[in-house]
Amino acid sequence: MDNFNFYSPTEFVFGKDRENECGELVKKYGGTKVLIHYGGGSAVRSGLIDRVKASLNAAGVSFVELGGVKPNPRDTLIYKGIEMVRANGVDFILAVGGGSVIDSSKGIAVGALYDGDFWDFYAKKLPVTKALPIGVVQTIAAAGSEGSGDSVVTKEEGMLKRDIGADVIRPRFAVQNPALLCTLPAYQTACGITDIMAHVFERYFTNTLEVETTDRLCEALLITILKEGPRAMAEPANYEARANIMWAGTVAHNGLVGCGRSQDWNSHAIEHELSGLYDCAHGAGLAVIMPAWMEYVVDHNVMRFAQMATRVFGCQMNFENPKATALEGIKAFRRFLHSIGMPINFAELGAKEEDIPTLVEKLNPGDGWGFVPLKAKDVTAIYTIAAHASLD
Amino acid sequence: MDNFNFYSPTEFVFGKDRENECGELVKKYGGTKVLIHYGGGSAVRSGLIDRVKASLNAAGVSFVELGGVKPNPRDTLIYKGIEMVRANGVDFILAVGGGSVIDSSKGIAVGALYDGDFWDFYAKKLPVTKALPIGVVQTIAAAGSEGSGDSVVTKEEGMLKRDIGADVIRPRFAVQNPALLCTLPAYQTACGITDIMAHVFERYFTNTLEVETTDRLCEALLITILKEGPRAMAEPANYEARANIMWAGTVAHNGLVGCGRSQDWNSHAIEHELSGLYDCAHGAGLAVIMPAWMEYVVDHNVMRFAQMATRVFGCQMNFENPKATALEGIKAFRRFLHSIGMPINFAELGAKEEDIPTLVEKLNPGDGWGFVPLKAKDVTAIYTIAAHASLD
Repeated sequence: MDNFNFYSPTEFVFGKDRENECGELVKKYGGTKVLIHYGGGSAVRSGLIDRVKASLNAAGVSFVELGGVKPNPRDTLIYKGIEMVRANGVDFILAVGGGSVIDSSKGIAVGALYDGDFWDFYAKKLPVTKALPIGVVQTIAAAGSEGSGDSVVTKEEGMLKRDIGADVIRPRFAVQNPALLCTLPAYQTACGITDIMAHVFERYFTNTLEVETTDRLCEALLITILKEGPRAMAEPANYEARANIMWAGTVAHNGLVGCGRSQDWNSHAIEHELSGLYDCAHGAGLAVIMPAWMEYVVDHNVMRFAQMATRVFGCQMNFENPKATALEGIKAFRRFLHSIGMPINFAELGAKEEDIPTLVEKLNPGDGWGFVPLKAKDVTAIYTIAAHASLD
Repeated sequence: MDNFNFYSPTEFVFGKDRENECGELVKKYGGTKVLIHYGGGSAVRSGLIDRVKASLNAAGVSFVELGGVKPNPRDTLIYKGIEMVRANGVDFILAVGGGSVIDSSKGIAVGALYDGDFWDFYAKKLPVTKALPIGVVQTIAAAGSEGSGDSVVTKEEGMLKRDIGADVIRPRFAVQNPALLCTLPAYQTACGITDIMAHVFERYFTNTLEVETTDRLCEALLITILKEGPRAMAEPANYEARANIMWAGTVAHNGLVGCGRSQDWNSHAIEHELSGLYDCAHGAGLAVIMPAWMEYVVDHNVMRFAQMATRVFGCQMNFENPKATALEGIKAFRRFLHSIGMPINFAELGAKEEDIPTLVEKLNPGDGWGFVPLKAKDVTAIYTIAAHASLD
């Protein structure tokens, strides 16, 4: 096991009707003037934004609001948010939405305390050291951003997708009411399930030995999703299935299951170019990329993939031919993604094989890193597997 | 799943040589004058206390020290610690030790800010609302106190064991160097393993339905301990086994695996009377009590015990007779405890059957609560099973 620091100071406030506590929570964490940040109209139409405002009013906290966050959140709205924060003396950002809204809020929180262009942080020109405090009322289970110190934002000019990571952008609190997920469209639910599984797998595939504790925790979350995911797809209003997925999604990405082990975020990086170029859902892109990545790197550690196959997907270990078990596990993963309505190849995603050179060039993998360090030729091969993948 | 709050703001600083960072950590969390609190001579003899002092000196943090914490930490030393804090203007408590030292530190941290008798909090006369900040350099994997908001202290007069729980006594940081565990005696190692398993089981046995995420996380920790525990017993200096146990022990008790579910801490309460009366190790008492408790309550939910048996202990499910599987799982647990050198009945623990009425009277279970609410007659029955338990 490697040395590590684990720090997850977010207060998770989970369950029915908990959004009505967000005013008191903002006050508890020092907010006096809030920017309510949200996405499209559904949070307004459902009455959620009104409940949030009522809770803020009841706590005597004043607010301004900025809606309009799109999936793959854009720099352009963040600039607008930063201006609003400064013009109104805002001292707390309240994200009401899913990963895109939370990530956009983190961009505003960081940019508001910096005189230069906030993109400097995402361009890795300087490290993030301070941010306005952030709270969350979560409406989608997927990104894990409610409990993470990460943010991914897209620069509209050139659709460049880049990230930051720092403990100071971990939300102070996250209200998690699974009932708010019960009206999510099926496709969005499935994308979330895929994203959660990817967050675990990208920690699971490690070169660090002797990490039984985190291996088992990873597998626990994956097994849970295999049970609860299809239930949420079949019964969208099933509170219990939504609740288990929502909590698994948070634990999957607050850092716990990656403690003490090298990780591999190449699939996320490879996917980001797809959602950057085609503006497709991140989860859908991952469904196409992750099994392709697995097939490409399986020989690097056949036994680890066989472990996944047996412990997560319930495959019988083929002791004469472990690689057969490993490949069976990857197939089972792809079949699962297909069963919840995810695309499994470029055609189903709306991507084009002829764009692969462009995708690889934008990603610019350099010397690579991770479980298997990938160079341009490797990424090309993974995109090519993804382009042609089938259930056979 | 029930509504819940989960808040674990402790910074875990895990790995080799990390105790050398404790000075900077104290400074980071606002400490300027530290009380170093520790137990017997081993922390001094091993050189650990000297390394801690060197780290504090290097960070420019001054300190006073108070050793002598015993297992089942006593109120008498806490009174002394509170006096020292006041006399020396101490603003930060640094616990260097295991659960007893950490729990004693929490008592001092709470009492130092209260004009009355600190025992008032443990006697549940008033709730804990403030405490001096606490840091930990952990030397035993067992109690989970390094990441919990709990403290258990024994009143020397009458050997009364009582607890407090509050987020304000969660340590600000916990330095966890598994190498420090490599010199622990076998018996203490086994007691720690037992305590960790008990912390998981007391969350696992719930009446809350639909808690797959936390069920699987519980099982992940238990499976890990079944693998790593015997390895640490056979090879005390095995860093990797110690590391996995240490991290599993923290996750077992920081609250994560109990989220959203009713719990049952009756076994801990029943055990506390044993270690109170005989001053035996808490883990050893649990080894005697937990399987007895399981046998007594198995009929309340046979399928949950069968789930434990199959998922944790690898028993084959007997679909014609699930109770046979449930009982097989409990037996497997008792055999495991015996295999790591734990007592499994009163004689092996040094307890006496004729003391059962005294034990029950001191516990005073009232109307009971938990998975199965226990009254005096139930507790008597559990002690009696524990008195006579065997491996058959």
